[in-house]
Amino acid sequence: MKISNRVLNMNFSPIRKLVPFANDAKKRGIKVYSMNIGQPNVVTPDSFFQGLTNYNEKIVKYSDSQGISILINSFIESYKNWNIDLSEDEILITQGGSEAILFSLMAICDPGDEVLVPEPFYSNYNSFTKVAGAKIVPFSTKIEHGFHLPPKEEIVKKITDKTRCILFSNPANPTGTIYTHDELKMLADIAKEHDLYLISDEVYRQFVYDDIEYTSCMYIEDVLDRVILVDSISKHYSACGARIGLVASKNKTLINQMLKLCQSRLCVSTIEQCAASNLINTLGSYLEDVKTKYKARRNLMCEYLSKIPGVVFNKPSGAFYILAELPVDDTEKFAEWLLTDYNYENKTVMIAPGSGFYGTDGLGKKEVRLSFCTSIEDIENSMIVLTHALKDYNALNLKK
Amino acid sequence: MKISNRVLNMNFSPIRKLVPFANDAKKRGIKVYSMNIGQPNVVTPDSFFQGLTNYNEKIVKYSDSQGISILINSFIESYKNWNIDLSEDEILITQGGSEAILFSLMAICDPGDEVLVPEPFYSNYNSFTKVAGAKIVPFSTKIEHGFHLPPKEEIVKKITDKTRCILFSNPANPTGTIYTHDELKMLADIAKEHDLYLISDEVYRQFVYDDIEYTSCMYIEDVLDRVILVDSISKHYSACGARIGLVASKNKTLINQMLKLCQSRLCVSTIEQCAASNLINTLGSYLEDVKTKYKARRNLMCEYLSKIPGVVFNKPSGAFYILAELPVDDTEKFAEWLLTDYNYENKTVMIAPGSGFYGTDGLGKKEVRLSFCTSIEDIENSMIVLTHALKDYNALNLKK
Ligand SMILES: Cc1ncc(COP(=O)(O)O)c(C=O)c1O
Ligand SMILES: Cc1ncc(COP(=O)(O)O)c(C=O)c1O
Repeated sequence: MKISNRVLNMNFSPIRKLVPFANDAKKRGIKVYSMNIGQPNVVTPDSFFQGLTNYNEKIVKYSDSQGISILINSFIESYKNWNIDLSEDEILITQGGSEAILFSLMAICDPGDEVLVPEPFYSNYNSFTKVAGAKIVPFSTKIEHGFHLPPKEEIVKKITDKTRCILFSNPANPTGTIYTHDELKMLADIAKEHDLYLISDEVYRQFVYDDIEYTSCMYIEDVLDRVILVDSISKHYSACGARIGLVASKNKTLINQMLKLCQSRLCVSTIEQCAASNLINTLGSYLEDVKTKYKARRNLMCEYLSKIPGVVFNKPSGAFYILAELPVDDTEKFAEWLLTDYNYENKTVMIAPGSGFYGTDGLGKKEVRLSFCTSIEDIENSMIVLTHALKDYNALNLKK
Repeated sequence: MKISNRVLNMNFSPIRKLVPFANDAKKRGIKVYSMNIGQPNVVTPDSFFQGLTNYNEKIVKYSDSQGISILINSFIESYKNWNIDLSEDEILITQGGSEAILFSLMAICDPGDEVLVPEPFYSNYNSFTKVAGAKIVPFSTKIEHGFHLPPKEEIVKKITDKTRCILFSNPANPTGTIYTHDELKMLADIAKEHDLYLISDEVYRQFVYDDIEYTSCMYIEDVLDRVILVDSISKHYSACGARIGLVASKNKTLINQMLKLCQSRLCVSTIEQCAASNLINTLGSYLEDVKTKYKARRNLMCEYLSKIPGVVFNKPSGAFYILAELPVDDTEKFAEWLLTDYNYENKTVMIAPGSGFYGTDGLGKKEVRLSFCTSIEDIENSMIVLTHALKDYNALNLKK
C-alpha cells in the first residue's frame, strides 16, 4: 500500500542505527556513555514543578491556539533582558522549538521551494524541510574556519528563484559556533537583496561562553520583517520534555497566517504552559549557574581532546556541543565499532557521526559531535575511553 | 513577502469571525452561552492530576519519540475492553488526536492526492489535509437520512487515481451519527476494491447512547492493514488541554514510517504522558457516569429543540453534538445577529454555523451545530434563548 514519498524520503534519526548496538553492549554489562545526546543532565528549576501544581482548575481545558497570555508575556518580559522588543501579537507558543521551525517553513515554503542552510546543521532540519515539501540547499562552513560563514558570494551563488529563506541556529548545533554581528549583517543583506526570510533558531541563546558577544538578527532593524525567531525552554531551562517553544516575528502578517497552523492543532498543552510561565523570570542565578557549569564541562572536554593525537576541533563559544575531526576514515564505522567491539575497563561511548549533520554527501565523515551537557564524571570517563579507543582502533587497522 | 499557498489556502477557525462579536456582547453586559464549543465542562478525573504530581524526576527529559511505554501499554489494556487487540509496535503516541490525523495524512498523501470524507465533517480536517498538500473530496450525507452514508455507488464515483483514503469520525462530529456495521463494511469493501486506507477517527468512541452498538473498522479483519485508528484522551477523559492522543494500525510498515514524523518533533510532553498513563484504567465508574450525564443533556436539548417550530434534527446516537436545521435562510447571518443585535433577558447564544462543516459550497447554510457538553443549566438557558430568538428573528424578517 502506498506510503507518501514525503515520508519515504525522510530519514530515521541518524543515531537510531546505533541504538540496538548500544543496547546489546549494555546487555553485555558494558557501561555506555552517551556523548551523542542533547538532553542536559542539569535539573529543571523548581519553579517549573511548582507551576505544575499551581494549576488549580478542575478541568484540563483547551487553551488559546496562540498560547496562553501569561506565558507570552513572560517571554516578552524575558526578551527585554536581551534588548529584543516584542509584543503579544508577534508571538505564537509552539510545541517546542521543533514545531516553531516546522510551522515557519510551512508558512513560507511551498513544495519545491528551497531552504538555504549552513552545513553542518541540526539534523532535524532535514525532516522539517521535507515535511514542508521543500528542499535543503546547504552551503558549507569549515572546521578550519571555526565553522564561521563563508564569503557572501559562496552563499549567494546557491540562491535560485525557489529560495525562500536562510535557516540557521545561533549559537549553532552541532558546532557551538556563534556568528558575529558582521556575519549576521551579511545574511541580512543577502535576505534583503534576494527577498528571503531569515529563520534564526536561538534555542541555545543563553549558552555563550568567554567574552563572546551574543548577537541576533533581531538586532538588525532594517530586516525585522524578514526575521523569524525560534526559541524554546528545552535547553535554556533544561525542560526538554515540556515541549514549550515559540516563534516570533515583527512580520505580523506572517504571524497571523501561522496562527492558522496553530488553530489546526487546537493548542499547546495547557498545564505545561502554566508551568513554563512560572519558570521564566523567576530564576535568580539559575541561568548563570548553568552557564558556569557548562563552561567548566566544555573546558574539561577540550582539555582531553587537545591531548588526543590527530583530533582537530574548535573550542566552542556557545551551545554544548563540539564537532571534532577524529583520526579515523569513517566515524560511522568507528561509532559502531565502539559499541559492538570495544570496551575500555568495561566502558564505552556512544557518539554521533558527523555525516548526519551535513546535507552534502561525503562531508563530515571524519567528524563526530560530542555533547558536554552530561556530568563532569561522564565527560571524564568518556574522554578517557575515547582516547584509548582511538589508539586501539588505529593500531588494529594498521595491523590489518 | 511570500507566504506559502498552503497557508494562504487554509482557513481560520470558522468560529473566529464570531469571537469579536461575542466579546462585544459580553462588554455590553450580555451573558453569552457558548453552544459552539467542543470543550466538555465535565471535570478531569483526579487520577490525571495525581499522575502529574507522581512525576518525581528532577529533570523534565525528552521521552521516546514513539511515546512512553507505560502509556502505550495502558492504551493496549484499555482497548481490550473494546475487543481491539493491539501491540506496542502498532501504536504511536501523538500530540492529541489532531497530530494523529495530521501524521496519518502526511504518511499516505503526497501533494495533489485526494482524501474522501463524508460531509458534514470536523472542520479541522480541512486544515490537516491542506497541510499535507492534499485535497478533500467530500461525499454528502443528509439530515433526512440521519447523516448515514449514501449508497456505495455515490461514494465510489468520487474515487480517482489520486484517492488515498477515506477519513471519517465515528461517532461523528458534528452529527452524532454512529455508523452501522454494514456501513463500515461497505467502506471496507470500497477500501479493498480501490486500494485505499481508512482513517477511523474515534475520539468520541465512549459516547454511544441508547442501545446503539459501537462498531469499528478495527473489527473488520480483512482490511486491518488499511485501517488507521485515531484516538485521544481529550473527550473521553475531559482532558483536552493535555494534548495526548494516538495513532494505531496493524500495518506495521506504516507505523514504522510514521515514526519518522514522530522523531522529527522529538517527543510528546513527558509529564502529560505520565499523567495520562495514570488516568486510563483507573477510572471506576467515571466513564459510565459521564455518559449518563451527556445522555441526560442530549435528551434535554432534544426536548427543547423538538418544540421549536421549523427546527429539523436527529437525536444523536453518539458524541455530544446536534447538527440541526433552523428555520432561517443563512445561519451565518443568524449567528452574527444573535451576538450583535439580540438578547433575551440579557442573554444570548453563540452557535457554530453549519457551512463550516461542509466541503461543498452552499451546503449546510440552514444548519447549526449545537454542543451539549456544557451544563444542564446552560443548555436550558441557551435553548430558551434560541427558541425566542428564532421567533423574534423571523418576525423581524417578515416585517422587512
Ligand atoms: C538547533 C536546535 N533547534 C531546535 C531544537 C528543537 O528543540 P525543542 O523542540 O525541544 O525545543 C533542537 C533540539 O535539540 C536543536 O538542537
Ligand atoms: C472528530 C474530532 N477529531 C479530532 C479532534 C481533535 O481533538 P484532540 O486533538 O484534542 O485530540 C476533535 C476535536 O474536537 C474532533 O472533534
